[in-house]
Amino acid sequence: MASNKKYLFTPGPAPVPPEVLLEMARPIIHHRTPEFSAILDSARERLKPLFGTRQEIILLASSGTGAMEASITNLLAPGDHAIFVNGGKFGERWGKMLAIYGVVGHEVKVEWGQAARPEQIEEALRANPQARAVLMQASETSTCTVHPVDEIGRVVRGRDTLLIIDGITSVGVFDQKMDEWGVDALITGSQKALMLPPGLGIIGLSTRALDVAQKNRAPRFYFDLIRELKAQRDEHTTAWTPSVSLIFGLNRTLELLHAETLPQVFARHRLMAEATRAAAPALGLKLISPESPAPGVTGLLTPEGLDGGKLVRLMRDELGVSVQGGQDQMKGKLVRIGHMGFLAPFDMLTAVGALEIGLDRLGYRFAIGAGVAAVLQRIAQGG
Amino acid sequence: MASNKKYLFTPGPAPVPPEVLLEMARPIIHHRTPEFSAILDSARERLKPLFGTRQEIILLASSGTGAMEASITNLLAPGDHAIFVNGGKFGERWGKMLAIYGVVGHEVKVEWGQAARPEQIEEALRANPQARAVLMQASETSTCTVHPVDEIGRVVRGRDTLLIIDGITSVGVFDQKMDEWGVDALITGSQKALMLPPGLGIIGLSTRALDVAQKNRAPRFYFDLIRELKAQRDEHTTAWTPSVSLIFGLNRTLELLHAETLPQVFARHRLMAEATRAAAPALGLKLISPESPAPGVTGLLTPEGLDGGKLVRLMRDELGVSVQGGQDQMKGKLVRIGHMGFLAPFDMLTAVGALEIGLDRLGYRFAIGAGVAAVLQRIAQGG
Repeated sequence: MASNKKYLFTPGPAPVPPEVLLEMARPIIHHRTPEFSAILDSARERLKPLFGTRQEIILLASSGTGAMEASITNLLAPGDHAIFVNGGKFGERWGKMLAIYGVVGHEVKVEWGQAARPEQIEEALRANPQARAVLMQASETSTCTVHPVDEIGRVVRGRDTLLIIDGITSVGVFDQKMDEWGVDALITGSQKALMLPPGLGIIGLSTRALDVAQKNRAPRFYFDLIRELKAQRDEHTTAWTPSVSLIFGLNRTLELLHAETLPQVFARHRLMAEATRAAAPALGLKLISPESPAPGVTGLLTPEGLDGGKLVRLMRDELGVSVQGGQDQMKGKLVRIGHMGFLAPFDMLTAVGALEIGLDRLGYRFAIGAGVAAVLQRIAQGG
Repeated sequence: MASNKKYLFTPGPAPVPPEVLLEMARPIIHHRTPEFSAILDSARERLKPLFGTRQEIILLASSGTGAMEASITNLLAPGDHAIFVNGGKFGERWGKMLAIYGVVGHEVKVEWGQAARPEQIEEALRANPQARAVLMQASETSTCTVHPVDEIGRVVRGRDTLLIIDGITSVGVFDQKMDEWGVDALITGSQKALMLPPGLGIIGLSTRALDVAQKNRAPRFYFDLIRELKAQRDEHTTAWTPSVSLIFGLNRTLELLHAETLPQVFARHRLMAEATRAAAPALGLKLISPESPAPGVTGLLTPEGLDGGKLVRLMRDELGVSVQGGQDQMKGKLVRIGHMGFLAPFDMLTAVGALEIGLDRLGYRFAIGAGVAAVLQRIAQGG
């Protein structure tokens, strides 16, 4: 390929803008200072429109998985019942976490690549009226699929059941309306649409969720959200040592996203996803989730008989272009192209171009250039 | 375009790798220290293979134009005669500089987009046997054209005439053989293939050129190359205050280029240029220099009746993609796409993709996607 240049299209971690990398290179300050407090307050406030909430947002020095765990240990207790949607690796993770913490999980099984239907949740709630929470993904990264949180919110509403949403590949990617949809906990991580390195878990909590957490006696220490909220809201610092540089970066990245304006940020992700999907028919490939595709990551099924793992390695090692393969039953059968981080529509020409060269080198026959032409045609239509 | 992301494809300044930006963010050190000397020595040594020389290389705190001026004020004196090739804006600049310094310039006029022919130089030398120097560009950036320095070197050789080459868009772009071709001064700037911000002028000098400079009494102070060489070679520092951060960056960028290996670096530029040129017939566009195209920058003539200036502004302001238009008689009629700096073949998909969208928006009719498909087809062939 005559190049050492690397391109990152994994669905997290994702590229970080140079301005943000430089901001994170600022000298470290102590976290019990007015200077840090001003940055923390600003970042927490600037996050709210991305969550669609006027309620509380808490930062954690953890990955997104840490924030998922916090939602369980703060909002549920051993012996509680909860419903969880399992439509992929991250839905499955909800189930594993519930079991570890002694919560009786009731699985709503969803075929990989399909969206959960509100009727499925309604039925699960009817069968398990004692469920204290419904847990699901807004966007299931492993299957590149969006679940209809708004419609499911309508089903859960009016009950004594919390709605806990893993929004790791939805917050900042597309419009989240936590308050309007009746979401009680909305979770994300820094390394996706927030255009930061990994290391920050972020959780938005409804007043109702805070009440539940306040009364909950289940054991937790590092992820004690009540203690954290008291520190962050009332004392303008964090309970434990925060990721100072990442919070510098977060404040800056949110400034960039708001300068771009959120409607434009969402349009950017949507256009990248639609342009990438446009390449599928042009290359004779199928989408893993044709009916409910995620705007943050696109999953293309690799051709029958072609080793998808080899394709992903070839793209990375020989072409310098990192995408991600499939997990579990999709291992070797899927290529996932991320649209999150410091990426814009033209970058999808590179992602799809590298995919084409990879497919060609592995013997798949098609008209080289058909994919990038389809990508450009979709970009040219705007949106 | 739903994006604030910017892409830089001007034929200098060109994108700088993040590693190099970080290197330049190192704390400033003083330039009369062993630490600075080690970096200066290393950078000067690492430059030599890019110039194709085992002779001396001198760094100047100036743009490339400063280094061009230095070659005149050090190697020529008022009343001297010199031959210069004028095949574009930079050839014309040689003429202007010679006149300012009282050198009698004999112009070899070359049509824009054409390469100088060795016979033209031979004829000029015959007509002006008193000429002390032949000055030309290795690659004329304004017309995206390569001149055959190797063949012209054979014509000049054996005479008492220096060969002074502006290599600003050739050093690091394609193989330069200063010693083998008999070049006496080879000049470049930091902001092209060296992948640095602007601010460093660099000049390689033959032993013969140094002898001439040594004896030359023409006035010069800041650009006194003998004084500079004494400082850089013998005292391991610079005569005047150097661009310390740029020299940090230069040493790092040369490390990256040598790690990539020079044959690969040259192949990368060649492939970018060939892939970009492949888009021309696909889009019904003509090249400004079809017979001797430069590997560092490609010039595409805009369609009859379409305002090329408007096209360049639209690409920059609406699509975030910076390319450069034409100058003088090519104003409004040319789009120049640079291949220098931290760029690789896949990036040409973005440059050509943006060109296609710009052309489409200005009413030029063609099959959108044809250009990027042609680019990818060329990339897929490798090289």
